Amino acid sequence: MTLTALVLNCTLKAGDETSNTAALAQVVIDALRARGVDVNMIRVVDHDVKPGVTSDEGAGDAWPQIHEQVLASDILVIATPTWLGQASSITQRVLERMDAMLSETTEDGTPVAYNRVAGVVVTGNEDGAHHIIATTAGALMDIGYTIPAQAWTYWHTGPGPGPDYLDTTTGHDWSASTGEAMAANLVAVADALRTNPIPKPPNA
Amino acid sequence: MTLTALVLNCTLKAGDETSNTAALAQVVIDALRARGVDVNMIRVVDHDVKPGVTSDEGAGDAWPQIHEQVLASDILVIATPTWLGQASSITQRVLERMDAMLSETTEDGTPVAYNRVAGVVVTGNEDGAHHIIATTAGALMDIGYTIPAQAWTYWHTGPGPGPDYLDTTTGHDWSASTGEAMAANLVAVADALRTNPIPKPPNA
Amino acid sequence: MTLTALVLNCTLKAGDETSNTAALAQVVIDALRARGVDVNMIRVVDHDVKPGVTSDEGAGDAWPQIHEQVLASDILVIATPTWLGQASSITQRVLERMDAMLSETTEDGTPVAYNRVAGVVVTGNEDGAHHIIATTAGALMDIGYTIPAQAWTYWHTGPGPGPDYLDTTTGHDWSASTGEAMAANLVAVADALRTNPIPKPPNA
Amino acid sequence: MTLTALVLNCTLKAGDETSNTAALAQVVIDALRARGVDVNMIRVVDHDVKPGVTSDEGAGDAWPQIHEQVLASDILVIATPTWLGQASSITQRVLERMDAMLSETTEDGTPVAYNRVAGVVVTGNEDGAHHIIATTAGALMDIGYTIPAQAWTYWHTGPGPGPDYLDTTTGHDWSASTGEAMAANLVAVADALRTNPIPKPPNA
Repeated sequence: MTLTALVLNCTLKAGDETSNTAALAQVVIDALRARGVDVNMIRVVDHDVKPGVTSDEGAGDAWPQIHEQVLASDILVIATPTWLGQASSITQRVLERMDAMLSETTEDGTPVAYNRVAGVVVTGNEDGAHHIIATTAGALMDIGYTIPAQAWTYWHTGPGPGPDYLDTTTGHDWSASTGEAMAANLVAVADALRTNPIPKPPNA
Repeated sequence: MTLTALVLNCTLKAGDETSNTAALAQVVIDALRARGVDVNMIRVVDHDVKPGVTSDEGAGDAWPQIHEQVLASDILVIATPTWLGQASSITQRVLERMDAMLSETTEDGTPVAYNRVAGVVVTGNEDGAHHIIATTAGALMDIGYTIPAQAWTYWHTGPGPGPDYLDTTTGHDWSASTGEAMAANLVAVADALRTNPIPKPPNA
Repeated sequence: MTLTALVLNCTLKAGDETSNTAALAQVVIDALRARGVDVNMIRVVDHDVKPGVTSDEGAGDAWPQIHEQVLASDILVIATPTWLGQASSITQRVLERMDAMLSETTEDGTPVAYNRVAGVVVTGNEDGAHHIIATTAGALMDIGYTIPAQAWTYWHTGPGPGPDYLDTTTGHDWSASTGEAMAANLVAVADALRTNPIPKPPNA
Repeated sequence: MTLTALVLNCTLKAGDETSNTAALAQVVIDALRARGVDVNMIRVVDHDVKPGVTSDEGAGDAWPQIHEQVLASDILVIATPTWLGQASSITQRVLERMDAMLSETTEDGTPVAYNRVAGVVVTGNEDGAHHIIATTAGALMDIGYTIPAQAWTYWHTGPGPGPDYLDTTTGHDWSASTGEAMAANLVAVADALRTNPIPKPPNA
């Protein structure tokens, strides 16, 4: 059966404004598709995801539809720009809404995120990628995602402020090669867990 | 074939001084053994692990023997106390020495840490566990470990300074239950990757 | 001349919903007022702060008015809940908008945040305060704020999920006492910098 | 009266091996000296700082002498390399030993670190500086140091592994200019606090 992936682009830029984060995420999307994965990308800032920590914050909330797609996907990729050394406010908004998944389970008590895998893509013009990868993956592990080996890529160049990803080609090769390894590992671990799923936890 | 696990207790306390970190790690060790895993624990501070980022820092360096056990283990657990909100200096020393594993590969170019899983145990008398879990797991992901869903447990109680783990029984149930889930998930994902290993990365 | 302070309550809860973060911030507000500081609090979620990294994101953006109050204040307090171990998305939104202040200067080239001081208040029902204090203060230091000694307080209690701040009185004394020290230190350093300001930076 | 500064070089490299961290720290040292500060640098790895969280861990412990110099200095600079995205194990060892300073006070109950200022210098060949600056400054704030505006500099260049600081001149100008601002701000705030010290905390 085909694996499915959802890429949440957590850029601050709305509409059709050029997103460096989308550009780097595309490398991962292409590598996932080359492995037969059915991939969908959502630019979250274009949807009215309300503040809160439930899966439905009422009238006008765009999260329920995104939540549904999260639950329909074997693979989740969070793609985020770096602002002041942290993941974007859109990324944190997404994680806050996913907090509710901590207590959402399948019928037998297995957390809904179990047997799904996740990875992180980071762009920025200076520094901060490993920190963002660690904190974002840490939150996803809490929720119940498995994080495959080297399931991330990033593009940054320092020290100090500099060009954006699309302003240059410096380092693109490394980021693309790392992104391909990320895609390969997401697929390999998603497949391994499909064949041999993590069972219901003993404390469920 | 039996799975093997190595627990690195990164307490600052030498010899037979009581280690709260060892006490909480024991819960995970017991749960791993109950699932048939062959577990070994090393109290790293009792060994002269030299500063550096290679796998052998020369005369008197105790790391080569620990490195060998790391490579012989399907499952790695880093158990650390919290000091000033961070993992201990012993934990960071271990990670620095594991940095060399980034370029150690099997014959076909697969990083040696691939198809191994890792988790984190944290103790402390105040606050900081999720940060330490995220940064430690982040480093292990870089090196090539896969981090299963909820592969951690911790014990802390705040706000402000308070009792150590062994000074009280408050919260022990939660930490034990979480540690059992951690053990179950480490075993499940290690088994899944043994059956369906992550292949050599495309950029190898 | 009277010192002025602005407290940005970055709770996710809108309107008059009970905010634990507001409740703990009130301790700091009271202690600032007892020292003669003129304090204002804004519940940011009630204002439409647009995504972006400029000081004015156009039609309907509520940030310009908040930005004005930030610039009118000697002391800034960021008060945030903890979600998945991180500061709230509202906090990150505020910091993103303050990113523009990196290049806003007074006439002689001094960054506008120089000679202002900042502190952090964190609430949550589990763990994560020191990490949030460090990352939030780190961003504020980048922008040009000075962070006085122990300019923070928090309330958390772990391990695992538990009561909210207002559900219990456990630990309130410690958080209040720490919050009073925070207020005293914010005032002392703000006063010291008013008398002896940091001059224009050599690289301005 | 002359201000005094202590720079702790927390490189992993012993003896006279070339230290990139020392090289970047030298820029800050020169800028401090140009402002009349009496600066001393210690390469911590060359001293046997024992694991522990007291100010004297007994026979052979080199910390008591360093601790004395910390207490004799108005300005503290932690200079650290980046390994796996974190400050070095030597840095964390230093902070663990400084943990004891949380309860060391002057006769009237003022924490010994009050009215001292601190900054951070980071080098590495990839990414991670802002995270290390934030976590290190966070620990120093806990202990009682005041962190002046922009009291840090770093040198890194990504994405992925690359040259060390001394292998190239790329970015040196930015790091030097930022280091000079750091030195100026450390001196300005140390002077301001000498004239108008933070008083004994209300909770002392």
